[in-house]
Amino acid sequence: MEIQIPTRNKVNFAPPRSFGTTLKSHLKETFFPDDPLRQFRNEKSGVGIVKKALQYFVPIFEWLPNYNLRLFRFDVLSGITITFLAIPQGISYAKLGSIPPIIGLYSSFVPPLIYAVFGNSKHLAVGTVAACSLIIGHTIGEKVSAVDDPTLYLNLVFTTTFFTGIFQTLMGLLRLGILVDFLSHSTITGFMGGTATLICFQQLKGIFGLKHFTTKTDVVSVIRAVLHYRDEWKWQSAVVGIIFLIFLQFTRFLEGIAIGRSFAIMNNEQVDGNKEIIAFGLMNIVGSFTSCYLTTGPFSKTAVNFNAGCKTAMSNVVMSICMMLTLLFLAPLFSYTPLVALSAIIASAMLGLINYEEIYHLFKVDKFDFLICMAAFFGVAFISMDYGLIMSIGLALLRALVYVARPATCRLGKIPDSNLFRDSEQYPGLTNVPGVLALQLGSPIYFANANYIRERIIRWVRDEEDISNAKDSVVEHVLLDLSGVTSIDTTGIETLIEIRKLLDAKNIKIAIINPRLEVMEKMIRSHFVDKIGKDSIFLSIEDAVESILFSTQKNYQVLV
Amino acid sequence: MEIQIPTRNKVNFAPPRSFGTTLKSHLKETFFPDDPLRQFRNEKSGVGIVKKALQYFVPIFEWLPNYNLRLFRFDVLSGITITFLAIPQGISYAKLGSIPPIIGLYSSFVPPLIYAVFGNSKHLAVGTVAACSLIIGHTIGEKVSAVDDPTLYLNLVFTTTFFTGIFQTLMGLLRLGILVDFLSHSTITGFMGGTATLICFQQLKGIFGLKHFTTKTDVVSVIRAVLHYRDEWKWQSAVVGIIFLIFLQFTRFLEGIAIGRSFAIMNNEQVDGNKEIIAFGLMNIVGSFTSCYLTTGPFSKTAVNFNAGCKTAMSNVVMSICMMLTLLFLAPLFSYTPLVALSAIIASAMLGLINYEEIYHLFKVDKFDFLICMAAFFGVAFISMDYGLIMSIGLALLRALVYVARPATCRLGKIPDSNLFRDSEQYPGLTNVPGVLALQLGSPIYFANANYIRERIIRWVRDEEDISNAKDSVVEHVLLDLSGVTSIDTTGIETLIEIRKLLDAKNIKIAIINPRLEVMEKMIRSHFVDKIGKDSIFLSIEDAVESILFSTQKNYQVLV
Repeated sequence: MEIQIPTRNKVNFAPPRSFGTTLKSHLKETFFPDDPLRQFRNEKSGVGIVKKALQYFVPIFEWLPNYNLRLFRFDVLSGITITFLAIPQGISYAKLGSIPPIIGLYSSFVPPLIYAVFGNSKHLAVGTVAACSLIIGHTIGEKVSAVDDPTLYLNLVFTTTFFTGIFQTLMGLLRLGILVDFLSHSTITGFMGGTATLICFQQLKGIFGLKHFTTKTDVVSVIRAVLHYRDEWKWQSAVVGIIFLIFLQFTRFLEGIAIGRSFAIMNNEQVDGNKEIIAFGLMNIVGSFTSCYLTTGPFSKTAVNFNAGCKTAMSNVVMSICMMLTLLFLAPLFSYTPLVALSAIIASAMLGLINYEEIYHLFKVDKFDFLICMAAFFGVAFISMDYGLIMSIGLALLRALVYVARPATCRLGKIPDSNLFRDSEQYPGLTNVPGVLALQLGSPIYFANANYIRERIIRWVRDEEDISNAKDSVVEHVLLDLSGVTSIDTTGIETLIEIRKLLDAKNIKIAIINPRLEVMEKMIRSHFVDKIGKDSIFLSIEDAVESILFSTQKNYQVLV
Repeated sequence: MEIQIPTRNKVNFAPPRSFGTTLKSHLKETFFPDDPLRQFRNEKSGVGIVKKALQYFVPIFEWLPNYNLRLFRFDVLSGITITFLAIPQGISYAKLGSIPPIIGLYSSFVPPLIYAVFGNSKHLAVGTVAACSLIIGHTIGEKVSAVDDPTLYLNLVFTTTFFTGIFQTLMGLLRLGILVDFLSHSTITGFMGGTATLICFQQLKGIFGLKHFTTKTDVVSVIRAVLHYRDEWKWQSAVVGIIFLIFLQFTRFLEGIAIGRSFAIMNNEQVDGNKEIIAFGLMNIVGSFTSCYLTTGPFSKTAVNFNAGCKTAMSNVVMSICMMLTLLFLAPLFSYTPLVALSAIIASAMLGLINYEEIYHLFKVDKFDFLICMAAFFGVAFISMDYGLIMSIGLALLRALVYVARPATCRLGKIPDSNLFRDSEQYPGLTNVPGVLALQLGSPIYFANANYIRERIIRWVRDEEDISNAKDSVVEHVLLDLSGVTSIDTTGIETLIEIRKLLDAKNIKIAIINPRLEVMEKMIRSHFVDKIGKDSIFLSIEDAVESILFSTQKNYQVLV
């Protein structure tokens, strides 16, 4: 039988890129994954660059020049619509933070103007948020009583707003938006649900018409306070409150659908998170000087804005003007709003934030995500908001670290009548090349998983030998498929060297399959390539298998 | 031209495994990666299992029955050799912790006996360690003075030893050895170097023969103290100390090589880290009741033990007996050991722990690993041991999280005259299939990188369109190669759905290539497979490309 030397695909052993090149590329991917300066690349003239830079940092310059009456008509309508939402929300959320209602209304007057200048989103509506209001009230309330010393309390609220603004602006400028990536969807769902639950319980004060209450926010303390002050219960208030709540709930399940649908579409809007947080920061810095407290872009208001057909940030300007008129002419009326109605409005809004379907979806698809969600939910509701958030983020990070520490590896087999090698657990019935054990490693190899990977590979070999012994054949070659290994550190390289030594002691040869760019560079720099030999590095498993079978004078085609 | 329907490899759409199955497999990989119970699997009889269990948990039952005089001869020799090391080390490390020298000697008497019973390693020699001694002395010294209240001080040392033992035993029983994986090689190199540096500086007290000194450990405080008490300098002491140090250094460069070589071989010994930490725990619990302080398996002593030819843990028993004889008959002599000689011995041992070559290697291969190492080195030397360690581990975890948050993606091209698709940055000159953009994602997709991956894919498409526009061709298909994606969470699935919507809006079709077992299960559970359609999931890029070209009535072979 004639034996042909197998043609082998060439592996690229080019010298590693310089430290400067890789550092630049890493920094770019870490802090500028969205390539924000892309638009400047083709701009040659100085004036053009200045103009683009101005448009980039102050987005109003981008959309205002093309603004016209047709767009304005849409924005007026949506601006008026969100004002109708801003008034009850402003008053009731301010109540949550023990802040005078008028401050809540101010907060929908100045900040929207700032956002209209610096904001990126076309649909976002500026306003106060229940969770922030509650956490401000709770934190400052621990130090200063809003009843005994209202001036100091309010000054602290403004100071908090100011420093939050500074902090947000710095975060954006330093491109620390990456931190937000560590807030998982599950954490947010649980946190919102937990916060909504505890805010609902807080409303029992208003609904039962209680005079005394607890300053604590957790559900147990609140229920205890409600039961403790049962002499103060007013059944008339409770009946009105509950009827109003039921009425609001019915008129809201439609709204829920609208919110869901609009978010699906709004998500497609490309917004630079770091620029957005700078806009929020500026909005809060200016806000703190003009008697406003913490504002951001609440979900519900933004959804209403979108559904009302807003076209640009001009709708925020319209809301601001409407709010000014309200403050001038209608403000005195709002002091007569009954507490029980406010409580029912808040409770109704909050009930909409508990996303049962999503929680069930998490339970069905991923139990650990469900656990992360529940940690936030129950942590926030029964312990405290910060503690719940920390617990949930901690669990999520723990999982990220376990992913990192215990990457999935698998044993590859050949799909009959093809040249593909796939996971033999996932695809039962794959064929093996006798004497060859092909393993696929996933995720980067480094200090946190290097020990594990060594143990795991040794175990694969041992298990394979346990099976093979029966068939009177032993493992002669281990192929490590590194296609899924995007990077490696020095501990990882040391581990590969150790694995090679361990297998060498058992007379098993090792081959590296398809190392990626960064891995190859480190392998060259650390002289791993010299140690293992260029001949032991292949571009594909087939290449390696063919080369092995050729060297053992067997014909590949005959065997498989 | 006749067109053939491409034969396509079948993707496995089997129903997902149950939660119980995957949980069990995850727990096993996380806590039992070394499969410690493997040996029990083939054991059927009850007596056999009990015997194996006893041998498993108390390793002495495994090796003692087969022990013979030939092995004993080796162990006697090595046991006597390490006793010669144990005496100066015991005395001098105890000094570092302001502990009476006799306690240092006791610590090489009882703990080795316990280790001989419960330890796994054949080569490990039990003894005290410089870093632990220093940290104990520093921590307890902050509360109680070893000079003013020696009894309380010593009791606290024993209490610390006891609780460390309890803590170690629990860690081992709970299989928390996984935590050790998060100590990177770079951190250990830096920590050892930093500790060695600061212990060397501490020896200036003994070498200059100072009476007064600082209780602080950092280099700056120590140098300041040495300069401050310059009236106390004894030049005779300094001259003797330095000459002795130079002498020791010369006799040690040989030893250094021996240590290096023996570790390379010792590494091949398979030791169960969790069982080992239980042995250390038991050793310290019993030790704390018998006037011993913290012991472990120091590198230098273990290397000497190995080189002296030890065969089993019996060498520890021999050392223990030798130490007992020393304590009975020779102990009074040691009170005359001059301080300057002890200082020179410690300084010499410590200088050997600063691994310059490894530090240079880190600098050359991986700059970030070098940074992690330097953080530990300078943190320990100039701030404090705990702070240095925390800084270094923090940096290493930060890098792990950035790896996780910013996984490498790449654009694939076809290697001419083959069916392989590889990174087109790594392999220049690859060909493209017009209208098709193939991307490879690495590492798990989940909350921490989901946003990034969305942005990155959109950017790949945009960049491709920028290039393609010139050629008057557009992206019609995006192929996402998930071969390297070992797992996904619900945020990750949501992101894939979002990406699909975003591309849909641009009339770009998406195809998923080779999803791995766990990813496929989540895709099925979350109905992603139903949404995208089974036809859009392929086992290989070639399959996808063939199917696309077939559907657009072009022949693949003609094009590439």
